[in-house]
Amino acid sequence: MPHIKLPEGIPGIVGPMVAYPETARPLNELAEVLLRGPSSLTSAERELIATYVSSGNECFFCTQTHAAAAREHYGAQRQIVDRVLCDREAAPVSDKVRALMAIADKVRRDGRLVQPEDVAKAREAGADDRAIHDTVLIAAAFCMYNRYVEGLATWAPRDQALYDQTGVRLAHEGYLTAVERRKEEAGAAG
Amino acid sequence: MPHIKLPEGIPGIVGPMVAYPETARPLNELAEVLLRGPSSLTSAERELIATYVSSGNECFFCTQTHAAAAREHYGAQRQIVDRVLCDREAAPVSDKVRALMAIADKVRRDGRLVQPEDVAKAREAGADDRAIHDTVLIAAAFCMYNRYVEGLATWAPRDQALYDQTGVRLAHEGYLTAVERRKEEAGAAG
Repeated sequence: MPHIKLPEGIPGIVGPMVAYPETARPLNELAEVLLRGPSSLTSAERELIATYVSSGNECFFCTQTHAAAAREHYGAQRQIVDRVLCDREAAPVSDKVRALMAIADKVRRDGRLVQPEDVAKAREAGADDRAIHDTVLIAAAFCMYNRYVEGLATWAPRDQALYDQTGVRLAHEGYLTAVERRKEEAGAAG
Repeated sequence: MPHIKLPEGIPGIVGPMVAYPETARPLNELAEVLLRGPSSLTSAERELIATYVSSGNECFFCTQTHAAAAREHYGAQRQIVDRVLCDREAAPVSDKVRALMAIADKVRRDGRLVQPEDVAKAREAGADDRAIHDTVLIAAAFCMYNRYVEGLATWAPRDQALYDQTGVRLAHEGYLTAVERRKEEAGAAG
């Protein structure tokens, strides 16, 4: 049961976002810019990093949600997402993405762990400043989203179909309409 | 030296915010709403929690910046901030703030650590849902800001007067003008 009163039947981060719309706005805007805005990384790569960080933090809701979005972005290559979740080192990703995931994992644990060698390795594999910046901020931001979801003990459904649907929607429509849509659905269902 | 090219002479989080304005906007909007928007906690209390979390994460720039803002909000009671940084249990804060800081510290380490007993303790001391929500999200958000600052190895000046000035400005003007002002100052100095 969540630690505070939240609208019933609304999963994960969407519950507190519906209940506290003032903070939901910048939280969704950040996700939209960071995962779907201009970047030298594809949205597939950025959602993969978000998934990887959420998995490291063991946040079930965020991992399932962003894994579903990443799968949708990867399309025919969707198996990459599950391979990364099983074993980053063996997963069929580019050296660039692998080096960026290593940076993301360090940021997740403690930003100070990132060393010039980690960044040099990513650059040698083709990462530019923008890719490094976005990776650090995605990892940092998911340390926030994961803690918001878990720190309030929000509800994480176990129904895979629900995450799949959300992933498709996030990949195509993005983050800005998520709260409005959820409120409408809750209204229609109620 | 920062891991990516950032404008010179601009400290801490403001460097990447100036260089990457698309993400700076929601990051500053979140800080503004969370620390200065409507809440059942005062801005002094919220800046104190932000300082406490940043200190736990050992982020020098964020700790000094938000400690200075908290001191300005507390005014004549400004010594509270330094007492909290030395020893939370002995610091002269209300039972409510002490219980909320305990929740914030758990969120900082791992959101799943927050137990119903922690929340019950805060409620008994007068915290409402809003206070608990805001505490969890402040702690989560500073886990992001701290990692953004440290993960890029940004520059943290050691000049206390600079933090004091920033604290006064943040307490009175807020977060939305920080980047614009910095750009103007950099332009004027250049």
